[in-house]
Amino acid sequence: MAQPYAIGIDIGGTNTKFGIVNQSGEILQQNRLQTNKYEKVQDFINELHEKLQPMINEAGGIENFSGIGIGAPNGNYYTGNIEYAANLRWKGIVPFAKMVSDKFGLLTRLTNDANAAAMGEMIYGTAKGMKHFIVITLGTGVGSGIVIDGKIVLGQDGFAGELGHTIIRHDGRLHKNTGIKGTLESYASATGVRETALELLRQYPDIPSLIRQYENEEQITSKTVYDCAVKGDQIANEVFRFTGQILGEALANFVMFSSPEAIILFGGLTKAGDLILNPTKQAMEASLIQVFKNKVKLLFSQLPEADSAILGASALVMEAE
Amino acid sequence: MAQPYAIGIDIGGTNTKFGIVNQSGEILQQNRLQTNKYEKVQDFINELHEKLQPMINEAGGIENFSGIGIGAPNGNYYTGNIEYAANLRWKGIVPFAKMVSDKFGLLTRLTNDANAAAMGEMIYGTAKGMKHFIVITLGTGVGSGIVIDGKIVLGQDGFAGELGHTIIRHDGRLHKNTGIKGTLESYASATGVRETALELLRQYPDIPSLIRQYENEEQITSKTVYDCAVKGDQIANEVFRFTGQILGEALANFVMFSSPEAIILFGGLTKAGDLILNPTKQAMEASLIQVFKNKVKLLFSQLPEADSAILGASALVMEAE
Repeated sequence: MAQPYAIGIDIGGTNTKFGIVNQSGEILQQNRLQTNKYEKVQDFINELHEKLQPMINEAGGIENFSGIGIGAPNGNYYTGNIEYAANLRWKGIVPFAKMVSDKFGLLTRLTNDANAAAMGEMIYGTAKGMKHFIVITLGTGVGSGIVIDGKIVLGQDGFAGELGHTIIRHDGRLHKNTGIKGTLESYASATGVRETALELLRQYPDIPSLIRQYENEEQITSKTVYDCAVKGDQIANEVFRFTGQILGEALANFVMFSSPEAIILFGGLTKAGDLILNPTKQAMEASLIQVFKNKVKLLFSQLPEADSAILGASALVMEAE
Repeated sequence: MAQPYAIGIDIGGTNTKFGIVNQSGEILQQNRLQTNKYEKVQDFINELHEKLQPMINEAGGIENFSGIGIGAPNGNYYTGNIEYAANLRWKGIVPFAKMVSDKFGLLTRLTNDANAAAMGEMIYGTAKGMKHFIVITLGTGVGSGIVIDGKIVLGQDGFAGELGHTIIRHDGRLHKNTGIKGTLESYASATGVRETALELLRQYPDIPSLIRQYENEEQITSKTVYDCAVKGDQIANEVFRFTGQILGEALANFVMFSSPEAIILFGGLTKAGDLILNPTKQAMEASLIQVFKNKVKLLFSQLPEADSAILGASALVMEAE
């Protein structure tokens, strides 16, 4: 019989969240640790173990667990390593999954955050029962997890699915971290939305806009632009239309690669609801050749955002009911 | 023991080529039929059978055959149907694989031409032993066959892998058949190369060019542009540089999707050799994020072009040695 519980661990640059998950996708217990407090990986893992052991005991011991799933920046599923993660203190190649497995005595799988999100959707979320779908995470950056035939696409090296870095506007906006111009992440991330707002304000100095109330440019975020848009602000609405146009064209390209049943959007930008969904859907459909039109569902993730990282990680080892 | 032979059938709008293939990828016997001569599918299949039966007998009978593989326009692997093929006389949905299987009494698989080309590369060609690669066919149009984990990517409906229709230049050149602007096929096909040449000639009326020797625009083809380029013609060389730039950017996008070991270019345009390969490789590398740089092989197909369609089709049913 399948074990009823799995452990999900989501490692972020600042905090690590972890919890015990059941097969229905409920988090029974959870806690967090400050990732950047630990100079040594082993100290961090020891502390994780200390915090998790009482939770495991309460759930009847490790016999009731199918394993430990971990979402981590630059996490490589094939090797179980965290490799050169820019925003973690542990440099180089860290054999993280093996160290966790040794400590806990449980099967341990590790991947990057976007792939974990896709697994979470497949096991507990909107993609339950789907074999072909793509999750796009629209946060500070743009990430992606691609599922084909029920399996995460990993590629030759485990690094497949970097759709945020695909070029959608030749010679377009410079992406500062990568030095590449016109990539999806430069536009469809929270950072990109903010930059589009600033550009439009400069481009149309004579159009009044509620966004101009923020004297300090730092205050202009995708959230404040959204607040202005729902009040009917013309420029703020144009920001989302423009963002959706670009996102929709990019999604059409992805559809013509893997012909998925659905694309699931996840993360901060989805709070804009129809303001982002409608122009995205329109641009996607207009950019698809006939055989793909009106066939691919464009959906928002329904997983509670606070829990989704732990759920996604746990899905790596959760056995189907 | 694996059967030593397979039948490969390549259906084109004008001609159909077919032959007997062995496990080394040698075509032992081959022949052709005029596709558009047959108004009824069944008559066409009967004629195929009549032509193939003596070849099958000579190879020791159907016991020596693993099956029949078919490459066809709009061929759907899941259903075995040819669906709404614009350049065939048989309209609507034709259950072609089933009809062939019923007639011959052999396992029959069918897919589109580009997927068949990818299978051919994997079983007999440059991709032998690879699990992750993409074949791009650069002919009159641009097609693609994508292999992940050793399997052709088919998607929810069997139509995945239409990379020629991905958008690479927002608001770019109009693709007349689809009505979509700026797709890869508008630039990186033989038709696209010709159009780029015509555009450059118009754009730079004062630059002398050997291409201007052709009084009739009909005479300007990717072949004649190539002939001028190797003689050092400035505009003809710019045509290939520009084409390679666009193709390379598109390939980078594909790499960031599936992280393949190699991209294999196939078809007429590859005859331009380094003239197309060098700018393509340069643009691809410049457009990739660090983790993918200098990792993906960009190769030309080594299969003899005259045989490749039959080989590719036969690879659908050929068992590994």
